[in-house]
Amino acid sequence: MLEDKNPQKTSLAELGEFGLINHITKYFKVENTSTIKAVGDDAAVLDASEKQTLVTTDLLIEGVHFDLSYMPLKHLGYKAVMVNLSDVYAMNAVAEQITVSIAVSNRFPLEAIEELYAGIQLACNTYKVDLIGGDTTSSTKGILISVTAIGKANKEDVVYRNTAKETDLIVVSGDLGAAYLGLQVLEREKQVFKVNPQNQPDLDNYTYLIERQLKPEARKDIAGILKELEVKPTSMIDISDGLSSELFHICTQSKVGCKIYEDKLPLDPQVISACEEFELDSTMVALSGGEDYELLFTVPISNFDKIKGNPNFSIIGHITEENQGLQLITRANQEIELKAQGWNGLQNE
Amino acid sequence: MLEDKNPQKTSLAELGEFGLINHITKYFKVENTSTIKAVGDDAAVLDASEKQTLVTTDLLIEGVHFDLSYMPLKHLGYKAVMVNLSDVYAMNAVAEQITVSIAVSNRFPLEAIEELYAGIQLACNTYKVDLIGGDTTSSTKGILISVTAIGKANKEDVVYRNTAKETDLIVVSGDLGAAYLGLQVLEREKQVFKVNPQNQPDLDNYTYLIERQLKPEARKDIAGILKELEVKPTSMIDISDGLSSELFHICTQSKVGCKIYEDKLPLDPQVISACEEFELDSTMVALSGGEDYELLFTVPISNFDKIKGNPNFSIIGHITEENQGLQLITRANQEIELKAQGWNGLQNE
Repeated sequence: MLEDKNPQKTSLAELGEFGLINHITKYFKVENTSTIKAVGDDAAVLDASEKQTLVTTDLLIEGVHFDLSYMPLKHLGYKAVMVNLSDVYAMNAVAEQITVSIAVSNRFPLEAIEELYAGIQLACNTYKVDLIGGDTTSSTKGILISVTAIGKANKEDVVYRNTAKETDLIVVSGDLGAAYLGLQVLEREKQVFKVNPQNQPDLDNYTYLIERQLKPEARKDIAGILKELEVKPTSMIDISDGLSSELFHICTQSKVGCKIYEDKLPLDPQVISACEEFELDSTMVALSGGEDYELLFTVPISNFDKIKGNPNFSIIGHITEENQGLQLITRANQEIELKAQGWNGLQNE
Repeated sequence: MLEDKNPQKTSLAELGEFGLINHITKYFKVENTSTIKAVGDDAAVLDASEKQTLVTTDLLIEGVHFDLSYMPLKHLGYKAVMVNLSDVYAMNAVAEQITVSIAVSNRFPLEAIEELYAGIQLACNTYKVDLIGGDTTSSTKGILISVTAIGKANKEDVVYRNTAKETDLIVVSGDLGAAYLGLQVLEREKQVFKVNPQNQPDLDNYTYLIERQLKPEARKDIAGILKELEVKPTSMIDISDGLSSELFHICTQSKVGCKIYEDKLPLDPQVISACEEFELDSTMVALSGGEDYELLFTVPISNFDKIKGNPNFSIIGHITEENQGLQLITRANQEIELKAQGWNGLQNE
């Protein structure tokens, strides 16, 4: 809605780059004592004191990663931050700063950028993260956002991908596949809208799915929950490309195999009913859907009692020897080899 | 040259994102002890020990910031790193890590991306900087690069923009305006080539100008030179948008004015002769050309003897009271008020 060239809108050219930066950043306030200097100099200045610093970055491009016809700009800003915070939390660290660079074509007025930054700001406020810098420029086509997130952790708390051990339990937070199905619902509504713009979609049955797609939340809470349980993961990764792909990262880097159980995959009831409606296999959706932003981690088998029954977690399998490969045990007790891109891979079985 | 779809080239789709990341990063080795974990996990891990961490980011977009018809991809990679390191050096800090995110359309084969990363790697090796992460994705149009640079400095060594004091001397490193003229030369040759592709351009008279445009070097050396002279700048900024714009940043943020002298602006002989040829005012080019990646800084007037006569530096003026504004003193001893965008601003005088 913010895209049409309403003459009352403020053009970005009018405002200029520095005007835009000032305009955007004046409502952001610094939350973390480690942020010595945020926006306004050649570089931001941070103080990590005794801790280690975590850095991660992601690039979101219109037409590749998002479609503005159903992704409101505010949600886009929020999600761009979540995607990055999720990577910091996947190191068992606390996210404290972000930089945000954007490129926008002239078709966007200032008000569109304000919407985008309102989402970024909501994410910063909710997750106690400081915006410390960035770059704003024009693009020849569409909009793109590049976010870098910076976090902090005690050296001994950082959890890598390459340290899973044989017999470890494999655990996921939350549930899987909903964001992917949310995208399917939105895509379908877009097609319906093209044919009949008067159609009022009834999305009541898909609220959870759509929320998971449009407003994902990074699992900031997991580090604290695990600390309280006195559980330290042996390896951890966030689920952005789908469970199957993330299992491959952990197993390949840790030089181990794994067995996961189809009947243990956590699925929301809306996922199950939407899978029936779309004629999709819910296991495939859970394995390969992507954009869940849940955490996948391994813990020593001795932690079984602490994790079991905790509503935040599902134990979905365990780590095996490397030469056993990555196996999915189906409900019918068959072993199927997982492929890195579980979705495409398994379709070819 | 790397853009045509030669069937012997490797397509990016074939390689996949993770294949591409592995392919690109395997030749980068870690140089800094502060880099605990570089590429390969959710986030990179750094250890700043007692020091402060500096973070800066810049976004370069094809068609906005560069033109591949005369910017070779290797140079583009090198320059994208320089632009960011320059910001770290402008804080009087040492750059130690970078993240590089790229988005490329299908028209680029793997070999083009290799060229780009060869330039990034050359920059990393030359400047002792570690590549610690990034993102690679497809774009719907052209190529874009987002670089974040991270540096380190003792708290007491960090130099900001907002701390220039009245009577301070204003100093620049190197010379000004050459990169802008290099761009003019390259643009002219592009037009000539369009009319007559057989024409062999004779660029001997412009080698310095073209090098400054295509392969700028960030001033890593300045911090060491100043330390040896026992001079600590009171404020510092890098000259990316043109001297005039940077003076505005320092003066506005420090709440001071300045006087700079036309006859003190450092100009290379090639700049002077190219200005005659292109019928450009060399003072305007020095003030507003941009992309010089030299450092602009202020020092207490007591440092005059230490800076004067040093071949790396030119004293171009001094800081005044805020209410005096920003003034250029011409060779004819006239006072002209500087505008933030000196080039456009002064054209309107």
